[in-house]
Amino acid sequence: MKNVANIKLAAQGRKNIAWARSQMGALLTVEDEFKKKQPLKGYVVGMALHVTKETAVLVDVLEAGGAEVVITGCNPLSTQDDVAVALHERGTKVWAWKGETHQEYYANLEAVVAELKKAVKQGKKALTIDDGCDLVTLIHQKHTDFIPSIVGGTEETTTGVQRLRAMEADDALKYPVVAVNDNKTKHLFDNYYGTGQSTIGGLLRATNLLFAGKTMVVIGYGSCGRGVSLRAKGMSAEVVVCEVDNLRALQARMDGFRVMPILEAAKVGDVFVTVTGNKHVIDGVHMKVMKDGTILANSGHFDAEINIDALKKLARKVTQVRPSLQEFKITDGSKEKNLYLAGEGRLVNLAAAEGHPSTVMSLSFCGQALALQYIVEHKHELQPGVVVLPGKVDDDIAARQLTAMGIKKDSLTKEQARYLTSWQAGT
Amino acid sequence: MKNVANIKLAAQGRKNIAWARSQMGALLTVEDEFKKKQPLKGYVVGMALHVTKETAVLVDVLEAGGAEVVITGCNPLSTQDDVAVALHERGTKVWAWKGETHQEYYANLEAVVAELKKAVKQGKKALTIDDGCDLVTLIHQKHTDFIPSIVGGTEETTTGVQRLRAMEADDALKYPVVAVNDNKTKHLFDNYYGTGQSTIGGLLRATNLLFAGKTMVVIGYGSCGRGVSLRAKGMSAEVVVCEVDNLRALQARMDGFRVMPILEAAKVGDVFVTVTGNKHVIDGVHMKVMKDGTILANSGHFDAEINIDALKKLARKVTQVRPSLQEFKITDGSKEKNLYLAGEGRLVNLAAAEGHPSTVMSLSFCGQALALQYIVEHKHELQPGVVVLPGKVDDDIAARQLTAMGIKKDSLTKEQARYLTSWQAGT
Amino acid sequence: MKNVANIKLAAQGRKNIAWARSQMGALLTVEDEFKKKQPLKGYVVGMALHVTKETAVLVDVLEAGGAEVVITGCNPLSTQDDVAVALHERGTKVWAWKGETHQEYYANLEAVVAELKKAVKQGKKALTIDDGCDLVTLIHQKHTDFIPSIVGGTEETTTGVQRLRAMEADDALKYPVVAVNDNKTKHLFDNYYGTGQSTIGGLLRATNLLFAGKTMVVIGYGSCGRGVSLRAKGMSAEVVVCEVDNLRALQARMDGFRVMPILEAAKVGDVFVTVTGNKHVIDGVHMKVMKDGTILANSGHFDAEINIDALKKLARKVTQVRPSLQEFKITDGSKEKNLYLAGEGRLVNLAAAEGHPSTVMSLSFCGQALALQYIVEHKHELQPGVVVLPGKVDDDIAARQLTAMGIKKDSLTKEQARYLTSWQAGT
Amino acid sequence: MKNVANIKLAAQGRKNIAWARSQMGALLTVEDEFKKKQPLKGYVVGMALHVTKETAVLVDVLEAGGAEVVITGCNPLSTQDDVAVALHERGTKVWAWKGETHQEYYANLEAVVAELKKAVKQGKKALTIDDGCDLVTLIHQKHTDFIPSIVGGTEETTTGVQRLRAMEADDALKYPVVAVNDNKTKHLFDNYYGTGQSTIGGLLRATNLLFAGKTMVVIGYGSCGRGVSLRAKGMSAEVVVCEVDNLRALQARMDGFRVMPILEAAKVGDVFVTVTGNKHVIDGVHMKVMKDGTILANSGHFDAEINIDALKKLARKVTQVRPSLQEFKITDGSKEKNLYLAGEGRLVNLAAAEGHPSTVMSLSFCGQALALQYIVEHKHELQPGVVVLPGKVDDDIAARQLTAMGIKKDSLTKEQARYLTSWQAGT
Repeated sequence: MKNVANIKLAAQGRKNIAWARSQMGALLTVEDEFKKKQPLKGYVVGMALHVTKETAVLVDVLEAGGAEVVITGCNPLSTQDDVAVALHERGTKVWAWKGETHQEYYANLEAVVAELKKAVKQGKKALTIDDGCDLVTLIHQKHTDFIPSIVGGTEETTTGVQRLRAMEADDALKYPVVAVNDNKTKHLFDNYYGTGQSTIGGLLRATNLLFAGKTMVVIGYGSCGRGVSLRAKGMSAEVVVCEVDNLRALQARMDGFRVMPILEAAKVGDVFVTVTGNKHVIDGVHMKVMKDGTILANSGHFDAEINIDALKKLARKVTQVRPSLQEFKITDGSKEKNLYLAGEGRLVNLAAAEGHPSTVMSLSFCGQALALQYIVEHKHELQPGVVVLPGKVDDDIAARQLTAMGIKKDSLTKEQARYLTSWQAGT
Repeated sequence: MKNVANIKLAAQGRKNIAWARSQMGALLTVEDEFKKKQPLKGYVVGMALHVTKETAVLVDVLEAGGAEVVITGCNPLSTQDDVAVALHERGTKVWAWKGETHQEYYANLEAVVAELKKAVKQGKKALTIDDGCDLVTLIHQKHTDFIPSIVGGTEETTTGVQRLRAMEADDALKYPVVAVNDNKTKHLFDNYYGTGQSTIGGLLRATNLLFAGKTMVVIGYGSCGRGVSLRAKGMSAEVVVCEVDNLRALQARMDGFRVMPILEAAKVGDVFVTVTGNKHVIDGVHMKVMKDGTILANSGHFDAEINIDALKKLARKVTQVRPSLQEFKITDGSKEKNLYLAGEGRLVNLAAAEGHPSTVMSLSFCGQALALQYIVEHKHELQPGVVVLPGKVDDDIAARQLTAMGIKKDSLTKEQARYLTSWQAGT
Repeated sequence: MKNVANIKLAAQGRKNIAWARSQMGALLTVEDEFKKKQPLKGYVVGMALHVTKETAVLVDVLEAGGAEVVITGCNPLSTQDDVAVALHERGTKVWAWKGETHQEYYANLEAVVAELKKAVKQGKKALTIDDGCDLVTLIHQKHTDFIPSIVGGTEETTTGVQRLRAMEADDALKYPVVAVNDNKTKHLFDNYYGTGQSTIGGLLRATNLLFAGKTMVVIGYGSCGRGVSLRAKGMSAEVVVCEVDNLRALQARMDGFRVMPILEAAKVGDVFVTVTGNKHVIDGVHMKVMKDGTILANSGHFDAEINIDALKKLARKVTQVRPSLQEFKITDGSKEKNLYLAGEGRLVNLAAAEGHPSTVMSLSFCGQALALQYIVEHKHELQPGVVVLPGKVDDDIAARQLTAMGIKKDSLTKEQARYLTSWQAGT
Repeated sequence: MKNVANIKLAAQGRKNIAWARSQMGALLTVEDEFKKKQPLKGYVVGMALHVTKETAVLVDVLEAGGAEVVITGCNPLSTQDDVAVALHERGTKVWAWKGETHQEYYANLEAVVAELKKAVKQGKKALTIDDGCDLVTLIHQKHTDFIPSIVGGTEETTTGVQRLRAMEADDALKYPVVAVNDNKTKHLFDNYYGTGQSTIGGLLRATNLLFAGKTMVVIGYGSCGRGVSLRAKGMSAEVVVCEVDNLRALQARMDGFRVMPILEAAKVGDVFVTVTGNKHVIDGVHMKVMKDGTILANSGHFDAEINIDALKKLARKVTQVRPSLQEFKITDGSKEKNLYLAGEGRLVNLAAAEGHPSTVMSLSFCGQALALQYIVEHKHELQPGVVVLPGKVDDDIAARQLTAMGIKKDSLTKEQARYLTSWQAGT
């Protein structure tokens, strides 16, 4: 069975991992501690995460903590082949390459489960790391017998946590999974600063379009959508926001953006980015009214946000015009127009570029590493279901990052600490 | 006993209230409902709130809902005299004027309590509205016998909620108080957009300084501090942030600001704004190293954030150079320097200007009105302590505001709603 | 003849002038030099400038340089009475008060001319300082006999320079006038940072509106319009720009704003600001389609930009709802709506607030003082017409301001200076 | 002699050119006119321009206008090989590939001159297009005999115009060259919006660094530097500006940035970008005090801005860590640090990414095409020296771009046009 792409890429992969390490100071402090404490000794960790240079550093950290790691990707288009190859060459068990078919993708997930089982047979305890919940879902659908051997898991992203909560509501989730995404040091940073910047980066590589003077429609105004909107504004685009939630719609408007239904936005937008975690938010009915030259991209976890089947159906010809850009020729009555799809509708930051910058992933992956440690330390108390880490973990991670950035700040004086807990003194 | 300032101001007060009403569409929809439903019939509401034109509209709404309202201010410098006079003239019981002494301030609070007691004797049930928790504290310190007559209360601001939570921790809070500040439609709007803009407005009126080219030090990076920083940046100041909290410090840095301890910031800042809810965050030790011409202002609830006694002690002469600006002449070794204090260290947006814009108060005061309704409707279930309103109240308020602004948005399709609660479909 | 308003205001005027001086370090360096060099000895300067605290500092500087100064305002609504009174009390000849009638305004201009003539009879040579070109126009229309006694003049603002260039084209300008507005240290700072900030300040005082969530239409995208747009964006408004010039319209769009004809903008705007230097850019036809509650303001020099007569004609009732805000009740078919006019359509930053911050005026007024010195030094070479100062004056003024702000910067090394003037070295 | 890189790239080149055309609507309107009018019939155009997809569209336009085009690059690292190959394959004479040696670079320039001479011998008249002035310099240094055959030329960039003006001052420039860079539609757009965005894009591809939380030092605050600073701020970096010019330094500060000498900035910066047009602005002395991990990049025309020799001398080891990123290991006393150089110190937007977005190049290249037409039409009047196009060309280009973007705007009414040229009406 194939594991990774062309082995010649290993040298570049090693360099890229080293480059990522140089930006991930906070996570390296965790690595130092893990080396000493060996919290994951006796554990095998099955990972379904974007196989990027930053993920490779997380693998370093887990291995430093004593874990055996087996890993596959969590998206058919997001693997950085040089990194996957470098991991493979050094002996980490990895199944991942860029451009997997749907079948290959699931075969790779199965390979990870098989390795987990093997390790458990050899006496190890299992942990899982997921990004999007495909691994957990697979285990719950096809490997229920294996569940008792799993001590716990973690989940990286909004969409995955959403699925886990749906499982929990269905009483279907059978082992404890930490919602790393719920860490403030994750969703207020990775989703906001990370997705914000990397979506711009993905669009730039896919199209090299000029943001200035363009109308960019951002669909979804959660942490990710806010980040994308802010960065698009920072690049001088006019931003239009579409939302279904009242409060978020109001925030978008107060942040200076126009807010309107997608069908209206479809008529005025030059570039569209979906970040909703939902399905078919851009559908055929919207594509029909879009302007010639419109660019469509997605930064949500799944490629379901843009209805690509509808797009294909509308088109009389599809051309790959650039590495991450397809042109859909559409005849619209007597007129003809082109719509462009970036990164095949998969998360454009990873499909067309390198994904989030290392520094922001350092925060998220501190969360991953510390979540695994937390599970191991609390394994006797944790119940099946979604677990949220205590706030002090966030404080700890933020402190590590401040140190890594060389930032000094104040602390409360005793008098101030006392003042905050007193109520008698008023005006 | 004096109630309000010069009665001649009533006409301008009425006009200003009408002007505020024209900006508070969301709150007017609550007024319409209250008129029909009379949810506050049989209740007397004792208010300690900034007596502004927006508060007058809230009084309108509560009275429309059947309540008797008795009101005083919650800060000695924040009353808009024309508005207080207009309320008084039309028959609302009010004790408030700009520039109360400490003694007058507390006498006015007592007057409100006395009126509440009087109304209760006449068969009404009592509710309280607080902003900063002075009224609740007074009641708990000096009128414990009256507490059983109080059905519940509300609290408007961060500082007040902080005090309430301290009371709760001390087991000292004896009736249910809704933390209106915890509404997302409150602290994500009023504190952020409101304080952000109105602090700029207050500084402009106090000093008319040029923000461009200045280094503005914002101390505290909660919702208020973030808002102030963003607006100061929007006016082209260079912003420096001081924080004690790791996560907030990190956010400030990621938002593009320099982060440093106050003692370092004190040497480089041109303008300082405190928004911490804490005490003496700018102290004598900082003032000593500040540059000649430095301007100090506070946007937190109490005037404790800047140690004004320390400032007075350092100064050899104090001059009122402009209506809301005092100059402190300080001899520093052989050198002489001036420090300037805006609005006597009281919340600069209200002390030197008109406070938050009406539209943002519309959101907060929807929260107040609906919180009172909630207390009345749930009076048999609510326990003494801090109460947080359910999320649907936020959704309801946001929807009212979107309607008031004429904004249309999307709703989930059935298929999308289903997708969000399913977990089986993955990559 | 009346000179100024209530003499009791003098003390506050002196304090405000002192406050302005504390922000105008660059101009004070010119004052120091003028004291020593006395470049204006033997000259009388007739000024028609906004009588503000900053202008008072310019008067200080000119008097320090040996000049006799006689001054009136250049706009019926822009005089700061406390400052005018303070100038008057100390002996400067001043005719100016806030709220002059058209007749009084021109009488005051005539008073200045009369004083100039008197001083010339006593042997002095005359100079003029204008802001908007009313004084120069008056002299050219009614005092042509006096022109030979005038050595030269200066003009402060875009509109005035526009009029001067029109005079020049008509061959009607009979003495040399320096276009101070053409200084980069003037129009790239005063017009941009100054008008930008002070327009926001004026709107805040007139209305206390919430910028966040509003659509603000800026008409005109020159230096002033760019400044206003940027600051409105900085306050979180959505900005729409109207322009007649292709290049500026394109810049506005590339800066992220929507660009459209006024008639379209009229339907979507919440707040309008005119900064065109032109006439009736907001006319009856636009007012008819505006939304209920729309606010109109002008930051251009003359009150001609909004057709106020048309507005009055449309209205069935006009009310002064706040000190700088009038409500126009308009019946539009079966519907009724209110439009609001800030500061009577006069420059809103001065009519409703204090005008530009002192620091930015320091740059402009360095230009004024140095322009007068330039005229005096070059009086034998200068021809009638519009004069532009050499670039080194800008460099000199910028250097003074950097010093005043304590900013250090690099200089070219010898090798770098040589490199910049060589052409042989390439790739 | 080699002309271009691997011929297999032609298909992608053709697609990229088509993609560029889809973004360059304004330039296509010029192409339409050129097709009809054939203004360049009988001319051979020698070009030394970055060989990008956008330049290929300019070649289209010139050929449509009747010209024969011969082309080479103007930088050893900026050629897009797929585009060069596509041009070659279709028959345009081109000598350009990415990664030319210094010798190859000059050989290619000579090849262009040789072709020009050949065409002139066949009866054509010669024109030149330059970007950086290497071609004009070569001709003036080694082919003076050929100068009489050249009707005129154009120059694209700031640095080239600087060299031309230096030539003019030396009386060395022997034919008329239009400073296209002086077009407002060029330097206010290409340099500002173009360099601003594409420098961010280049840095992203070279490093994938997180801008948020970084201190980015921009050296030079002309149109390019302002653009880079604004976009870096838009990506949430803290920006520090270094300048030698007083006025620009002051603008930088008023725009909210810290301004300091490079030696100070060297100690605090995380990323440096040079955009000065000068030499060794980052020198060994600065590198010595830089922090570990600092990234250096240049967006100026020549690779002289960072003293790369000094960097090499300081380093004990140089590694290519990523395609456009070199690591310099420096031992600094007892400490070791790494500095990183992006794109070999050549313009990072082209060396590490695709250069300016097509839309902004459309404006610049309208200027190029119309400049050639202008030269041809005025060939009998033009004198040797630097030529600036009349303002109406800018107006024309801006109008074309507005149309391409579908933007409508107002025009002056007759009354307004009259008002602008009258001076009699005042207050």
